[in-house]
Amino acid sequence: MALPSKEHSEVFPESGGVRITCAPFPGSRKIYVEGSRPDIRVAMREITLHDTQSSREGVAPDHNPPVTVYDTSGPYTDPEVTIDLHAGLEGIRTPWILERGDVEELDDITSEYGRRRASDPELNPIRFPRTRRPLRAKPGARVTQMHYARRGIITPEMEYVALRENMKYEEALEDLKRQHPGRDWGASIPAKITPEFVRDEVARGRAIIPANINHPEIEPMIIGRNFLVKINANIGNSAVGSSIEEEVEKMVWSIRWGGDTVMDLSTGKNIHETREWIIRNSPVPIGTVPIYQALEKVDGRPEDLTWDIFRDTIIEQAEQGVDYMTIHAGVLLRYVPMTANRTTGIVSRGGSIMAKWCLAHHEENFLYTHWDDICEIMAAYDIGFSIGDGLRPGSLADANDEAQFAELKTQGELTRRAWAYDVQVMNEGPGHVPMHMIRENMEKQLEWCGEAPFYTLGPLITDIAPGYDHLASAIGAAMIGWYGTAMLCYVTPKEHLGLPDRDDVREGVVSYKVAAHAADLAKGHPGAQIRDNALSKARFEFRWEDQFNLGLDPDRAREFHDETLPAEGAKIAHFCSMCGPKFCAMKITQDVRDYAATLGIDEAEAARAGMAEKAREFSEKGGEVYQKR
Amino acid sequence: MALPSKEHSEVFPESGGVRITCAPFPGSRKIYVEGSRPDIRVAMREITLHDTQSSREGVAPDHNPPVTVYDTSGPYTDPEVTIDLHAGLEGIRTPWILERGDVEELDDITSEYGRRRASDPELNPIRFPRTRRPLRAKPGARVTQMHYARRGIITPEMEYVALRENMKYEEALEDLKRQHPGRDWGASIPAKITPEFVRDEVARGRAIIPANINHPEIEPMIIGRNFLVKINANIGNSAVGSSIEEEVEKMVWSIRWGGDTVMDLSTGKNIHETREWIIRNSPVPIGTVPIYQALEKVDGRPEDLTWDIFRDTIIEQAEQGVDYMTIHAGVLLRYVPMTANRTTGIVSRGGSIMAKWCLAHHEENFLYTHWDDICEIMAAYDIGFSIGDGLRPGSLADANDEAQFAELKTQGELTRRAWAYDVQVMNEGPGHVPMHMIRENMEKQLEWCGEAPFYTLGPLITDIAPGYDHLASAIGAAMIGWYGTAMLCYVTPKEHLGLPDRDDVREGVVSYKVAAHAADLAKGHPGAQIRDNALSKARFEFRWEDQFNLGLDPDRAREFHDETLPAEGAKIAHFCSMCGPKFCAMKITQDVRDYAATLGIDEAEAARAGMAEKAREFSEKGGEVYQKR
Repeated sequence: MALPSKEHSEVFPESGGVRITCAPFPGSRKIYVEGSRPDIRVAMREITLHDTQSSREGVAPDHNPPVTVYDTSGPYTDPEVTIDLHAGLEGIRTPWILERGDVEELDDITSEYGRRRASDPELNPIRFPRTRRPLRAKPGARVTQMHYARRGIITPEMEYVALRENMKYEEALEDLKRQHPGRDWGASIPAKITPEFVRDEVARGRAIIPANINHPEIEPMIIGRNFLVKINANIGNSAVGSSIEEEVEKMVWSIRWGGDTVMDLSTGKNIHETREWIIRNSPVPIGTVPIYQALEKVDGRPEDLTWDIFRDTIIEQAEQGVDYMTIHAGVLLRYVPMTANRTTGIVSRGGSIMAKWCLAHHEENFLYTHWDDICEIMAAYDIGFSIGDGLRPGSLADANDEAQFAELKTQGELTRRAWAYDVQVMNEGPGHVPMHMIRENMEKQLEWCGEAPFYTLGPLITDIAPGYDHLASAIGAAMIGWYGTAMLCYVTPKEHLGLPDRDDVREGVVSYKVAAHAADLAKGHPGAQIRDNALSKARFEFRWEDQFNLGLDPDRAREFHDETLPAEGAKIAHFCSMCGPKFCAMKITQDVRDYAATLGIDEAEAARAGMAEKAREFSEKGGEVYQKR
Repeated sequence: MALPSKEHSEVFPESGGVRITCAPFPGSRKIYVEGSRPDIRVAMREITLHDTQSSREGVAPDHNPPVTVYDTSGPYTDPEVTIDLHAGLEGIRTPWILERGDVEELDDITSEYGRRRASDPELNPIRFPRTRRPLRAKPGARVTQMHYARRGIITPEMEYVALRENMKYEEALEDLKRQHPGRDWGASIPAKITPEFVRDEVARGRAIIPANINHPEIEPMIIGRNFLVKINANIGNSAVGSSIEEEVEKMVWSIRWGGDTVMDLSTGKNIHETREWIIRNSPVPIGTVPIYQALEKVDGRPEDLTWDIFRDTIIEQAEQGVDYMTIHAGVLLRYVPMTANRTTGIVSRGGSIMAKWCLAHHEENFLYTHWDDICEIMAAYDIGFSIGDGLRPGSLADANDEAQFAELKTQGELTRRAWAYDVQVMNEGPGHVPMHMIRENMEKQLEWCGEAPFYTLGPLITDIAPGYDHLASAIGAAMIGWYGTAMLCYVTPKEHLGLPDRDDVREGVVSYKVAAHAADLAKGHPGAQIRDNALSKARFEFRWEDQFNLGLDPDRAREFHDETLPAEGAKIAHFCSMCGPKFCAMKITQDVRDYAATLGIDEAEAARAGMAEKAREFSEKGGEVYQKR
């Protein structure tokens, strides 16, 4: 794969040459919008556009204002920032966390396992070099964003996400903002996101800001149905492994293309150390499924899992800075037999681990019975719950069945119990669901889980697309995003078949950006159409570079264009590569427009007065002119 | 790209080595279902599956019945058929056409241009070698499928499509057929497609069987909202050209992956000769946009187009065997100014050509004023109309606007006028439409165009995905297919950027098969879920080869799998490449199931008795067992 030309990468020392992708996007620069205090500096990407050249002689070119877009890539795409993986990113939230006065620095990490790893000299070569003392809530304190929100406090994190969500769209010209009213299925999206609105949404549990106090490096983001739809990318070295260094680059690569959060699903050895490298260098929230690591600790035997091992694992991860954790506490003993006659049984790893544990012990899921204990830990670090859907359907045949919905109801119960501890919660959802059965999932989740953010894997709308499951699932993801899902977990083309490589991750992330953005447009999220409008205008005016740069993947767009017409001149040519110079529809349209202009219609005025009425007037005037002749 | 191993290809003589892809699909064989007479032999593909091995000792393996799937690939995937591109395919419809007694063989082709090309010795090297005398309706006769249907006649073509649509699903086992009831948005899909139903749908214009009497080589297929959703693939050498031989292989390649029809959008030179090669070798209906060729004849100057030139062009193509033609007769003079203030003006090539003609002459679109003349020609050869949407939106900003819907209303008027001539009609639709505005398109089309089949391009649900527009449009396509669109025109990843190559065509076609199939599932088309169920069962049972072979693209699935675990042994291993042997969810589920079996639950009986009730009973029984201990 060709990397952008102005690449500015770092070669990771121990890696034998893994490069960290640091090139800024073409035609783009990193900007920072300052909030109410100088240390709130919200990163965005600004795409600079070329002027519009008039086809009429003597007419001065029109200026096209730059377009600001949401930027998940962090400091990696800012040439002003020196990336040093061994130091990690700057902890921009550290002062915010400390000034609240409700945390204490621990002398040592709490987790027994963590201490064992820390003192093992054999791990020195792979250990993240900078040591830090973990933070924890002072005894009795709750340090969650939800806790502050419920007390009416607007944290710097909340202000950050408010500025971030707006993407400066209030500065966009009126005609750039022109957008179809959406259909929001009962969402409550304001015209402008304010810090107060963020606070209120977090307070009522309708949105979460995953932000562990031990992960001060993040640029805060929000997940909720009244905000932009987010996407998650998964990374992780499984048994058929990859190296630590590759995992860090996978994270950087994922957020470059638009991953809003990254889940580290590693199951190999050294996952403790890998995770530290990832978190220290990640500007986005990191999620995990702690049961995977707990299972490693009992050599892969689910029946040997205990509450103590699990507890030590979540504390270990909490003090590293994991921002949200998938916990399969809704897989209850009595639900397990509901899956016996399914076509594909239990397809969630976490779900099947807990099911096996339940059966082996003939006892209720210990994650469920220890839910209050877990909530207390989450509240002490501000870790968000991502309540797992361990019984999600793995095939269309199993969609929306008794097992799935039984668990969803329990997810609702667990949500309310977590809220009692001020713990932020989202709920995981399916899976494999045919199109017409998707809405039922969303409706039941909203109802049963009190509007807590829904976080779905696809859903895939057919089972027969191995090799194309990113696409099959992006269809379902776009739809459920429209209906109200707050975050979409990406699926790569390798789903069901193998481990995704670099190209697959990019393909999966961009596919999901398409789905998420389509959902924003359909919900009528204010300003969502600005980028579409700007790209379409560039397309119509043959500003090829602008068209590439406004797209979700400028590199691929450019590459595809150049395959047919590689000459630099073609990028300013007034025809496109599909039709060649003679039959270009847009060229002909320009002639139509020029012709219309000769009839004395002032386009600019017409545009100002509103399209519909003016077009009708135009038509009537035009009709007369034609008939007179 | 790796071709299947058992390749059986033909090297095309003049091509310098272009190969025609003739390999059968892995694990598949071509079968023919005979109808009421021996010359109705409906081609289908049968996928053979492996037995299910029991994990319990001493239990005999279970037989998995083969799955029959719709097959668009024609004789190319039948090893019993010898492909000779120079002879063309067998004209299986010839006896059906001739026995109706309403056609005459012409001594020479009617088109002046066609005769000129035929007598030009310089074209000998590229001319299709077999000459044939064109057929035309006897004076006064109408030879359309709609004409026969309205007279109560069931043609062999109608019987063929009835058998084809059913895919022998009535033979599938009950549990394979198990399917969620759909939501059909007012469609009228019967439990089984009968020849009578086909006839009635064609008679009322709700479905079409594109079947030019000069294209006897086709395996008849039907396009209508109560049938399986179809997809079209475009091929064509534009100014930035490709060779005749490549075009033929493009057609073969497109139908291999699932193209139900192919549109030849060539605009280069020698398109007359190219088209003959394609039609003679095509088992699927071929569509064209005759205005493209007409424009060639006037050196690309729309204003020089005349009715006579256009008339000669459609007759030229009619006598070659084009099955349906896109005609932009709905772009009326008074609609053109409605586009002047659009973001992207007129993006349809045909639309912009006609708009320019209208403005240049200050006259009404000659395709509209000559509509009755055109209908007479169509009726004499049984060419279907695909009434173009020349004013479709080229950006979200222009979606569902006045110009688009004005033309759609006129498409409705033209539809009814064509039906008066017994001419089969479908209507083309957009384009670029955000998700929440898609349904309005379908509703208006159904209402205004009397339920004539809708044939849409996508729609794309965002403009910001250059390089991923196959995916952005597959989302819209799946949705509009669900709402009632009968055929989806594919979009490749190169849309807006360049000309698709072989990989792009495959990517585009398979993406659209996903969308079309998702729509069938959501509408609740009987038997649509059989393949999903079979694949999911294979997936659950680690029958890797069956999983690949049941997928829409077995080659890619296998290739992706082998990248991670290339060993042949891995394909029978009881774990998947994602999780490795230890953490495999499906493996654990199997343990759960085995455990459940030890409790005395007879799975087979439970499955027979119906999932839901039995699962509940199971749960109750199970619950007791667990609590007793």
